[in-house]
Amino acid sequence: MASDPTTPEPGGHLRGDWLDAVHFDRDGLVPAIAQDAATQRILMVAWMNREALLETAATGRAVYWSRSRGRLWRKGEESGHFQRVREVRLDCDADVILLKIEQEGGIACHTGRESCFFQRLDDGRWVTTDPVLRDPKDIYS
Amino acid sequence: MASDPTTPEPGGHLRGDWLDAVHFDRDGLVPAIAQDAATQRILMVAWMNREALLETAATGRAVYWSRSRGRLWRKGEESGHFQRVREVRLDCDADVILLKIEQEGGIACHTGRESCFFQRLDDGRWVTTDPVLRDPKDIYS
Repeated sequence: MASDPTTPEPGGHLRGDWLDAVHFDRDGLVPAIAQDAATQRILMVAWMNREALLETAATGRAVYWSRSRGRLWRKGEESGHFQRVREVRLDCDADVILLKIEQEGGIACHTGRESCFFQRLDDGRWVTTDPVLRDPKDIYS
Repeated sequence: MASDPTTPEPGGHLRGDWLDAVHFDRDGLVPAIAQDAATQRILMVAWMNREALLETAATGRAVYWSRSRGRLWRKGEESGHFQRVREVRLDCDADVILLKIEQEGGIACHTGRESCFFQRLDDGRWVTTDPVLRDPKDIYS
């Protein structure tokens, strides 16, 4: 997360083991943003634990931690909509991961949309701005 | 956060009061991504509580919740690097906010860089890829 100005700038995480540099929260998790490497659109945000981040870096495929299922979630394992990781970035406080990815099938969201951020605040209402590209029933059948 | 396929699709948050639709966590917070509206670069991630999100929407300036200081953080209040909000988006699970912003001064990070995501994983090391545009000592003097 971005620091307000009173937080001292970290430096230690620039050296040594890259995985130890990441600040996982009290649940052992860190948020990870998946951004389309070509269009720069933000596709989704999910959680990673240490193992998910390690496997992501090792395989070049995005792996998250599913809190609802309590296990590793290899994105695309059911939908086929896996994510090829082109770049892994870390923020200044070392507690947010950014993945630049290529989205297989052009669908990141479990609702069948390209992006999970398909609702825009408009005049005091959340308005759905994006079409469903594929019926989730067909994706997860 | 993005749901794995076993999570039922929410729908209730598309109706009714927009603020009540947002799922704040057990600490009353939600992560908010600030993305440059022009370049689509991800500049930072910070936390918002209900009040911060309400003030952000009402004023068109990004307001976060500073966990270290335990108070609202009106981005730019010390640095002058405030953020004009062009669009507010919500993800499918209603627990991540995306702001499309214009960044005053072109610097979002307290390190004096454009973006907080200035470290890239490269051959097992976090490599700093972005220059410091302005010395933080000059920003926060």
